[in-house]
Amino acid sequence: MNFCTACGHRLELRVPEGDSFLRHVCTSCGKVHYVNPLVVVGCVPEAGERILLCRRAIEPRSGYWTIPAGFMENGETLVEGAARETMEEAMARVDVHDLFAVVDVVHARQVHMMYRATLLDGGYGAGEESLEVALFEPADIPWEEIAFRSVHFALEKFLEDRAAGVKRLHTIALNRPGSP
Amino acid sequence: MNFCTACGHRLELRVPEGDSFLRHVCTSCGKVHYVNPLVVVGCVPEAGERILLCRRAIEPRSGYWTIPAGFMENGETLVEGAARETMEEAMARVDVHDLFAVVDVVHARQVHMMYRATLLDGGYGAGEESLEVALFEPADIPWEEIAFRSVHFALEKFLEDRAAGVKRLHTIALNRPGSP
Repeated sequence: MNFCTACGHRLELRVPEGDSFLRHVCTSCGKVHYVNPLVVVGCVPEAGERILLCRRAIEPRSGYWTIPAGFMENGETLVEGAARETMEEAMARVDVHDLFAVVDVVHARQVHMMYRATLLDGGYGAGEESLEVALFEPADIPWEEIAFRSVHFALEKFLEDRAAGVKRLHTIALNRPGSP
Repeated sequence: MNFCTACGHRLELRVPEGDSFLRHVCTSCGKVHYVNPLVVVGCVPEAGERILLCRRAIEPRSGYWTIPAGFMENGETLVEGAARETMEEAMARVDVHDLFAVVDVVHARQVHMMYRATLLDGGYGAGEESLEVALFEPADIPWEEIAFRSVHFALEKFLEDRAAGVKRLHTIALNRPGSP
């Protein structure tokens, strides 16, 4: 980050008055350019016992399997974001239910928020960011080819809860000293 | 947003290839400047029956009461963010427990995430962003002077759960057509 978005002059890294973090501050107009963690929102779409997964067509982790998920956009709720991502990546309509996993991905500056969901009409297909999309029986989930640890965690907890007949909220911090 | 942070040239609003949202794109180097919702993280610190609230010294809603909360920073977990904000605004050390409220504040492009917490050693005071900080019995909470609807919602649900002896996760979307 080199230039001010407001006036185009040079930025410098310093702690603004009254702040305690290093920020990119404009050397001309003084505008502070904050950079904060992003929300990644996704869901686990169920069709009976089976779960809808997408094989990624883009980096990072192209070729690996994930649940439909992506960056939350302005103007939408978390639930709307999870549904939108599922439409974009898996061409599938879902009913998004409750939040069941919140994952701090500290190193990536992201918070991942995962919802339980139901596939609405059985239709699905590979969106632009997916190589293929498929329904998996729990026993067939390709655990060794899951794209992200947050998704691995979410799938694991989702299945544990379903097997136990409970609905819990699971949290974990990844990419921390001492964390998994 | 007028200028590119990478090269300083002019930005234009357009939908990048493969995208479906309007973004600020550099007319020279092509860099896309994404703007996404921010996470506000906070907690309800308990000391026995009483709850710690802060009267805001800054806009928006200066002079109104809130729980300790603020923008999550890079490099921290949600729980660490809630503890940091409590130290900054209320000069208080807390043990942060479970997530109990997730509020979509769509118009403000924010997601508010509120945790249950315990005041650790009884000490507190007004941080730079607070006019005063005080412990309130539930009956004395200044409901008409609460700064934000998300905080009103969180306090209400926190007290309902405590009275019922349960720990639930509450969600709501504010600033939506038809929403409260």
